[in-house]
Amino acid sequence: MALPFGDSSRHENTLAVIHTLREKGSVARIDLGALNGISSATVTSISAEFLQQGLIRECPPETPRPNGRGRPKTLIELNPNAACVVCIKLSINEIQLVVGDFSGQVRHSEHHAVPTLALSANDLEVLLEEKISAICTQQLTGFQRLAGICLAVQGVVSSQSGTIIWSPALSFRNAPISARLAERFHCSVLLENDANCIASVLAAQPAYADCPNLVVIMLGYGIGMSVLINGVPYLGANGSAAEFGHSKYQPDGALCACGRRGCIEAYASDYALYRAAANHLELPSGDSAHPSEKQMQALTQLALQGDPVAQEIYAEAGRALGVGIANVLALFNPDLVLITGSGVRGFDALQAAMYSTLDEALVAELKGTTRIESCAWDRDMTCMGGIAMTLNATDGETLLDSQTVREA
Amino acid sequence: MALPFGDSSRHENTLAVIHTLREKGSVARIDLGALNGISSATVTSISAEFLQQGLIRECPPETPRPNGRGRPKTLIELNPNAACVVCIKLSINEIQLVVGDFSGQVRHSEHHAVPTLALSANDLEVLLEEKISAICTQQLTGFQRLAGICLAVQGVVSSQSGTIIWSPALSFRNAPISARLAERFHCSVLLENDANCIASVLAAQPAYADCPNLVVIMLGYGIGMSVLINGVPYLGANGSAAEFGHSKYQPDGALCACGRRGCIEAYASDYALYRAAANHLELPSGDSAHPSEKQMQALTQLALQGDPVAQEIYAEAGRALGVGIANVLALFNPDLVLITGSGVRGFDALQAAMYSTLDEALVAELKGTTRIESCAWDRDMTCMGGIAMTLNATDGETLLDSQTVREA
Repeated sequence: MALPFGDSSRHENTLAVIHTLREKGSVARIDLGALNGISSATVTSISAEFLQQGLIRECPPETPRPNGRGRPKTLIELNPNAACVVCIKLSINEIQLVVGDFSGQVRHSEHHAVPTLALSANDLEVLLEEKISAICTQQLTGFQRLAGICLAVQGVVSSQSGTIIWSPALSFRNAPISARLAERFHCSVLLENDANCIASVLAAQPAYADCPNLVVIMLGYGIGMSVLINGVPYLGANGSAAEFGHSKYQPDGALCACGRRGCIEAYASDYALYRAAANHLELPSGDSAHPSEKQMQALTQLALQGDPVAQEIYAEAGRALGVGIANVLALFNPDLVLITGSGVRGFDALQAAMYSTLDEALVAELKGTTRIESCAWDRDMTCMGGIAMTLNATDGETLLDSQTVREA
Repeated sequence: MALPFGDSSRHENTLAVIHTLREKGSVARIDLGALNGISSATVTSISAEFLQQGLIRECPPETPRPNGRGRPKTLIELNPNAACVVCIKLSINEIQLVVGDFSGQVRHSEHHAVPTLALSANDLEVLLEEKISAICTQQLTGFQRLAGICLAVQGVVSSQSGTIIWSPALSFRNAPISARLAERFHCSVLLENDANCIASVLAAQPAYADCPNLVVIMLGYGIGMSVLINGVPYLGANGSAAEFGHSKYQPDGALCACGRRGCIEAYASDYALYRAAANHLELPSGDSAHPSEKQMQALTQLALQGDPVAQEIYAEAGRALGVGIANVLALFNPDLVLITGSGVRGFDALQAAMYSTLDEALVAELKGTTRIESCAWDRDMTCMGGIAMTLNATDGETLLDSQTVREA
């Protein structure tokens, strides 16, 4: 495939300019040059092409500066309508669809209650095609192109082959999904583990800029993890790395949703906490195998208010997490372990047991300097990460496409 | 620092030629070009410089080919005496010193019984200086230069800062060691974890060429691990990654040499196996806290001959390893787990329990396609790896040095 510009360093410079504009918002041409180590002549030439292609726009001029020095700089920013991506988050009994624009902002979001566990692989494909088609018709008319689709899935996926290997949200396994969607919608399709999407959002935050080796643990219905090594998600030989939830706390211990025993998830996930509580505590009615946010909030409140049974359930979850995190520290020695996900609602009820178990488990030399922190949960974080990853992965195609359109 | 040649691609080509000669032995110039994607003119020019600098030599001409086609190629090979490295392997109660030549071959090896646990940091430095000085006087006279020293240590080291953080062979901790040796011997000093040295040797073997993500588990007095990610040892934030031996089997379980409870090492290391056996079985006398090879052989024989107590001790070690490897598979999803080290002598006595525990612990999707194999132990493997790593790390300096000498 020919590059949109004459040589590869020019191509890299154009991508760098787009990434900087997406990260910073509106930027003066001269600052774009300085931020990327590019000459101002090159920035001028690149931005002239971008303007012609509709990829950027000039911001309305600032009012003259009070001190009167120099004329105000003209800032440029990405044209948000130059392209869009659709991110679909697939979790148990829910599908969320989000539209992100070329600047990375969320422009539309919708949730659908779907009995995901009852779907066949074909049902899922048909459903996704239908929902994405509807989004295309109703939401994407203002955009120059659909750059890509991201499917963010709980569980084990092979990003490379576009196959969902194993997800707690689905009863089928080993389903190739990306190829059919790519063919149907004529765009790139990224298949990602949901925790990797979240880790990419967190890793971009200034507070974590000094943490190239970052572990993100996602508490919720299941327990997920993402490991960034030098800022890049570590996937392993076939995409099943970082399955923290199925590392072991007690061999032959509690039954896990995976069918095996003693996994961390079998103690510290929503379903495990609720299972341990359901027969002993008065809790809101509902599907106790798939507890709702309301059910989980009620259980957490009991623990925080001092109910001894609820307290012990969370303490055992904390001990399981403490052993699991001890293993993660011994094996990965990361800069930072961030604990998030909807299950972080119960963090205050489990953290004392978690930290003391971790202290007992590891000598100081192996705990090293790793920081362990919790991080507030935002349910849109998965899709925001999926949008950012998809835009980054498709900017080259968007450039090529704009170039082709202009030349035609 | 100026490069020995005019530009960086020329410098890279010269290093590539050296690496190829080290890997292949004697090679014809034309093949050196083809193997490295370099023009024959460049190879001719590089090899002329190398000959002048004494880095390579021409092999005696082959006898003419029986079929008489063409004249025999002149092969070139590294001059083994162009440089040497000293590798010191530090383990409990023993120090091994090995001299490797410029072609990577072992030229001298000596072992010294040393009560390592009784040494202070200063004692160790004095001892190493003395032993290395003696080697320099007695063994290195034929070499053009001492390119570097490698210190291969059991336990946690910071290669970057040259500090031994924590080793089961030493009773002190956090000892900077590389700087003093570098100053004393005027050469580069590499500090490496012993398992990483071994993994670098194994990863270079053709049988494992398709395993970029390789985990090597070292059974022995302690239990070590090396994790290669895309062929590079993963060190973590401060060098304490891959501490498999201190990941957990049974929280609150058996006491480990680290002072904590329930580590894999507390079940499957030599000292743990011997501790479990010592009061119940008739075994050779000796220091049961630091069992000798003879003591361990006796215990292994009992298990293999069907003694039920010895069998159960190895079965429990196998279960601990099975859980530990399950965690490694869930977290790293490597291409291959290789089990080696002196403790592999007992592999046949523990493997059935290890494999069945692993099968019970993980669903098929998380076991994935990872191969798990044992690998015969060679006690010189650590030093061979240390020699190879040190030569690779110092080839640039050797080039520069030869250039300077030639110009002077």
